[in-house]
Amino acid sequence: MDELGIGLIGTGFMGRAHALAFHNASAVFELPLKLRLVALADADTHRAESCARAWGFEQAYGDWQQLIDDPRVGLVAITTPNHLHFPMAMAALAAGKAVYCEKPLAVDLDQATRMRDAARQAGVITRVGYNYQHNPTIDLARELIRSGELGEIVGFQGEFSEDFMADPASPWSWRCEAQHAGGALADLGSHLLAMARHLIGDITAVCADTRTVHPQRPASAGSRETRPIAVDDQVHALLRFANGARGTFSSSWLKHGYKNHLSFEISGTRGTLAFDQERLNELRLCRVGQSGFQRLLAGPDQPRYAAFSPAAGHQLGYNELKTLEVQALIEALAGQGQTGTDFEEAWQVERLATAIRQAAREQRWVDVSEF
Amino acid sequence: MDELGIGLIGTGFMGRAHALAFHNASAVFELPLKLRLVALADADTHRAESCARAWGFEQAYGDWQQLIDDPRVGLVAITTPNHLHFPMAMAALAAGKAVYCEKPLAVDLDQATRMRDAARQAGVITRVGYNYQHNPTIDLARELIRSGELGEIVGFQGEFSEDFMADPASPWSWRCEAQHAGGALADLGSHLLAMARHLIGDITAVCADTRTVHPQRPASAGSRETRPIAVDDQVHALLRFANGARGTFSSSWLKHGYKNHLSFEISGTRGTLAFDQERLNELRLCRVGQSGFQRLLAGPDQPRYAAFSPAAGHQLGYNELKTLEVQALIEALAGQGQTGTDFEEAWQVERLATAIRQAAREQRWVDVSEF
Amino acid sequence: MDELGIGLIGTGFMGRAHALAFHNASAVFELPLKLRLVALADADTHRAESCARAWGFEQAYGDWQQLIDDPRVGLVAITTPNHLHFPMAMAALAAGKAVYCEKPLAVDLDQATRMRDAARQAGVITRVGYNYQHNPTIDLARELIRSGELGEIVGFQGEFSEDFMADPASPWSWRCEAQHAGGALADLGSHLLAMARHLIGDITAVCADTRTVHPQRPASAGSRETRPIAVDDQVHALLRFANGARGTFSSSWLKHGYKNHLSFEISGTRGTLAFDQERLNELRLCRVGQSGFQRLLAGPDQPRYAAFSPAAGHQLGYNELKTLEVQALIEALAGQGQTGTDFEEAWQVERLATAIRQAAREQRWVDVSEF
Amino acid sequence: MDELGIGLIGTGFMGRAHALAFHNASAVFELPLKLRLVALADADTHRAESCARAWGFEQAYGDWQQLIDDPRVGLVAITTPNHLHFPMAMAALAAGKAVYCEKPLAVDLDQATRMRDAARQAGVITRVGYNYQHNPTIDLARELIRSGELGEIVGFQGEFSEDFMADPASPWSWRCEAQHAGGALADLGSHLLAMARHLIGDITAVCADTRTVHPQRPASAGSRETRPIAVDDQVHALLRFANGARGTFSSSWLKHGYKNHLSFEISGTRGTLAFDQERLNELRLCRVGQSGFQRLLAGPDQPRYAAFSPAAGHQLGYNELKTLEVQALIEALAGQGQTGTDFEEAWQVERLATAIRQAAREQRWVDVSEF
Repeated sequence: MDELGIGLIGTGFMGRAHALAFHNASAVFELPLKLRLVALADADTHRAESCARAWGFEQAYGDWQQLIDDPRVGLVAITTPNHLHFPMAMAALAAGKAVYCEKPLAVDLDQATRMRDAARQAGVITRVGYNYQHNPTIDLARELIRSGELGEIVGFQGEFSEDFMADPASPWSWRCEAQHAGGALADLGSHLLAMARHLIGDITAVCADTRTVHPQRPASAGSRETRPIAVDDQVHALLRFANGARGTFSSSWLKHGYKNHLSFEISGTRGTLAFDQERLNELRLCRVGQSGFQRLLAGPDQPRYAAFSPAAGHQLGYNELKTLEVQALIEALAGQGQTGTDFEEAWQVERLATAIRQAAREQRWVDVSEF
Repeated sequence: MDELGIGLIGTGFMGRAHALAFHNASAVFELPLKLRLVALADADTHRAESCARAWGFEQAYGDWQQLIDDPRVGLVAITTPNHLHFPMAMAALAAGKAVYCEKPLAVDLDQATRMRDAARQAGVITRVGYNYQHNPTIDLARELIRSGELGEIVGFQGEFSEDFMADPASPWSWRCEAQHAGGALADLGSHLLAMARHLIGDITAVCADTRTVHPQRPASAGSRETRPIAVDDQVHALLRFANGARGTFSSSWLKHGYKNHLSFEISGTRGTLAFDQERLNELRLCRVGQSGFQRLLAGPDQPRYAAFSPAAGHQLGYNELKTLEVQALIEALAGQGQTGTDFEEAWQVERLATAIRQAAREQRWVDVSEF
Repeated sequence: MDELGIGLIGTGFMGRAHALAFHNASAVFELPLKLRLVALADADTHRAESCARAWGFEQAYGDWQQLIDDPRVGLVAITTPNHLHFPMAMAALAAGKAVYCEKPLAVDLDQATRMRDAARQAGVITRVGYNYQHNPTIDLARELIRSGELGEIVGFQGEFSEDFMADPASPWSWRCEAQHAGGALADLGSHLLAMARHLIGDITAVCADTRTVHPQRPASAGSRETRPIAVDDQVHALLRFANGARGTFSSSWLKHGYKNHLSFEISGTRGTLAFDQERLNELRLCRVGQSGFQRLLAGPDQPRYAAFSPAAGHQLGYNELKTLEVQALIEALAGQGQTGTDFEEAWQVERLATAIRQAAREQRWVDVSEF
Repeated sequence: MDELGIGLIGTGFMGRAHALAFHNASAVFELPLKLRLVALADADTHRAESCARAWGFEQAYGDWQQLIDDPRVGLVAITTPNHLHFPMAMAALAAGKAVYCEKPLAVDLDQATRMRDAARQAGVITRVGYNYQHNPTIDLARELIRSGELGEIVGFQGEFSEDFMADPASPWSWRCEAQHAGGALADLGSHLLAMARHLIGDITAVCADTRTVHPQRPASAGSRETRPIAVDDQVHALLRFANGARGTFSSSWLKHGYKNHLSFEISGTRGTLAFDQERLNELRLCRVGQSGFQRLLAGPDQPRYAAFSPAAGHQLGYNELKTLEVQALIEALAGQGQTGTDFEEAWQVERLATAIRQAAREQRWVDVSEF
């Protein structure tokens, strides 16, 4: 079996999530490639070393360029803050390495376009971490849609809201800066846009309205000094899909009561399905002729669930979606599958977010092909 | 105690609902006026007579003008199809009678405007049957908003969907004709617009998208002949409220799984509340500092619930909302209250629906004050 | 059409509920008898008179025996405190009148037996107000069971809990006295026992455990004087049904979070259904081959729902269950139906409650036929 | 840091679950011991070898005694069918090794008693895989109870039902044999008994009723030959807790609609909490003074959740409960904690199940101390 050398950049929460996912993907699945945890990079060399030891990487680097240059590394995984995605991915692509980058792809559409073009030119496998799509429950939703069981898809109501910025005393962070892809739309909404495309397909036109509810926030936790905030606290939009479906889109990071409310209802001429990430193992489905919604629990009928548990109702967790993302990536690298969001598709999501911002700014419908 | 003579026009489902409501309002509440069921009108004289007997009206009329002219009648209740609201209400207002008209007020904004103007001129009490607003659960929602317990209101997600036209074989009816105030927006959506105004206040601008999913329907049940359909099967919109809140609005009459899904989430800087008419006795509420939603069951803390049951959890039904609407009307007639939707407010709802249609037709934001 | 003279005893919450139900049953249904509200009795003559006027009764009595003796009265409705059911029902039966008595039938099994025997001898129609059984949702549940759609019924989990005595400062009342049929078992549990019999049939043996959690309560609201409490605050039991099904039974009046939680799950070899009175218009159903529960909303497929609303999802309220109980009673009086709980069946419920108390007292299984 | 050598017996679903858990516990937590995956045993040597490679064990054994004898092994993990727990655990204890055994502890109380005694004598750390207790949501439930926030605990309603034997064509397996600890009580109910003890404490007396609904099942899948079944398909019981609480207990493996319905409601004088394993990241809570249940999502306030995710609502899965079980075990081995079910406590669960079987057989209340 061929071996794939993994180089991971970043040791934060997402860095550890990647490390766990590489481990678990090998243990849970019979992968077509043998994974070798070659190197871990962090600007803090000491931290790089202790994490490398704890997570089973052979080597630590303080300089990420060295990791990319390491000839044993075949796949570069990027889990750093958003503004570093661009230089790291561009360097990895220049070196002809496969790239696995956390979302969002970039901090603006220009960067994203250059990354997409570089990936095209390099001809390597790329993936972006829209991990919610790798949920077996979502596989089931997609099957129901693709098979025509819901009939023609006509409606979409989507919302991704959380409450982590609800408190006006929640301080400024890089997430509050437009030039770092900040705001509820970039941070949360992009997941929902990717999901809408994953399930229903191209979106051709958008109209939108955004608002910064708290235009000043403390410069840091507890500080009396404030910083002005320019990014959206909430965004509402209308979506027109290429297949004729229409829908609404909402995202907020200051909605009390929600912790991870990536939710949608998709309605067709023969049925409706509903999902909420806060109950990620469930789907609600009403087929034509039924009088009400039925609860479907993810189970071993979905092969990607079966790998984890032989019985329905035992539930996967958030971290296992990451393991599934890695599995899909490794299969793609072995030429055995195409599941997952590549730079081409991630660019589409960035374009859509850009169109939504434009529509909000100019208070008009925007044709997505303008970008 | 003064007596109020009731004249009721129409003997369909809503006619009977009114008759029951007049009975029950007297039995449940200590009303300030004694209600006398004077006359019932239906074009079918025979039906008028048998219903008058069954429902306890003193007299039956085949001609509604005679009912209006009857000097014993002080309040004219109109429950006929939409296109008759205008002539009946205008005649009643001309006769100086109070008017209680089913929703929607009229079949177009021009009619609605004339009705509003006539009501202003007549100086009588008018009411329009937006009965969902008379739910004690909605009273509670409104209190929570008015008292500031949710903080500044910033977001609204509203949807009113049903499935009764989901089957493409569901035949044409007057509800499918624009000139009879047809379509999902008029039939269902208007309730949600009225509710949004009831809870949050004026809406200043809208953008919208409508679609006729099934542009042909059987001319009648089972017929092979079809008729073209021009009204909306579904509508999606963005709303801007005068107080700065923003939101989404959806309505469909072909969404599988829903029977009476007038639902909304209203979020503020200090909390979120959610409601679904399919569980009309419940509110979900999350206050700042709480980690999740709490279920509130309507109970006797709400005076209008207490009139029906001394204990929470015993639940009111749809018909009792009508009884509460009548109670509010009678109190208004006795000069003791202002609760309920008068022609002035119902005109606002018609104006809003008109703006939404315009926004959809012209694919642009529409300032509601254009109308 | 024949006329039936109604005599109603009691003007409390249940008295008014009866009065409303007689009104509404006539308006909602085409009853086989014309109802005439002849007389209303209350020991407080003044109150009897004012309620008679408000509720439309022709005459008021201060002495209930006079009401029973009134030759115009054909049906005597009893809504007084429990200990008066016995003398009033016995007098009415002695006079050959039909009897409609609130639940529980009597304060002990001896009384109940004498009432049942008197009813047998009188040969009149009797009914006891187990109104929850008249819910169209329960009709649907019963159909699903009777038709065999759930297969052989094997399991029952039932609970009726509320919280109205949860506060140890909730004072003593007659409900706390065994000789007035007090305690959670009598007050709440009897409804659930009646429901279990209604849906699954005879119960042959029981084992039980009761507990008085707060053995002292204030003598009255706010009083520092206390009274000892002997009745059960909560009861748990095992049930064996004649058809082989087994199950658990719980009732408590001090369980926080519940207001009217008469709930059950009934499982068979081909499906499971679940119900909760706090959402009285819904049933959850899982049929063999389905992977999860489906929500069924009561709708016009159920004839007794259709009488109130032509569309599902519009919901009936608690008071309408009373209207349906009256309808069933009037049909029985006209020889057109047998729906409802007569004294024979209500005696079965009393016997069962007696067996449960005995089982708890002696800490052993009790064969219900011991009583 | 000291090193702990792990020897794992069994390569089935639970074997892999253990292997993953050892990996993940090291990556997710800063464990006080360094785990070394020394050896994996399976009677099928070939399988032992391939799994050892895939899961990262240094050596494979075909003979489990050799694994126990391997001096590098300090902890023996047992994941074989139930009847092998006894010989393996006894051998490991005899060798002075720590033991981590899957549930149930043994196939009868006699075995369990000998295992407990051997563990006492060996003086080593033992653990049994009641993994549901390691859920951070359950930690939260326990805190709420222990802190007195629910007041005095008075009621327990517990049920653990699934549907995997609902089909009468589901064939015989060792789970259908009493001598292998078969039946719904042993397979499912034991988890709920362990949970009841974990949360509320000792149970002193039980009464119970069991039933074999399908007394014949196919000898194997699709076979026309049948085998008689003697174990319980469902069990219902009453429980009396040492602290005065009372409750009901149900378990079934043929209840349609449920996949992993380990559920309970625990009510106290100051609140009620409810849990369902099918939504393992949620708790429903109603505190005194609140009118309804609130949904609590597990989040980083619980330290054992925080180790996996910095944000609430991201959810743990079934497999992560196993990781948490391993973490607790390793801490106990390092002398840093006592969390988890040792042989002493697992024996209590077996004793309780034995008392329930006796109570059902003899149809009487059984004092648990009889055993």
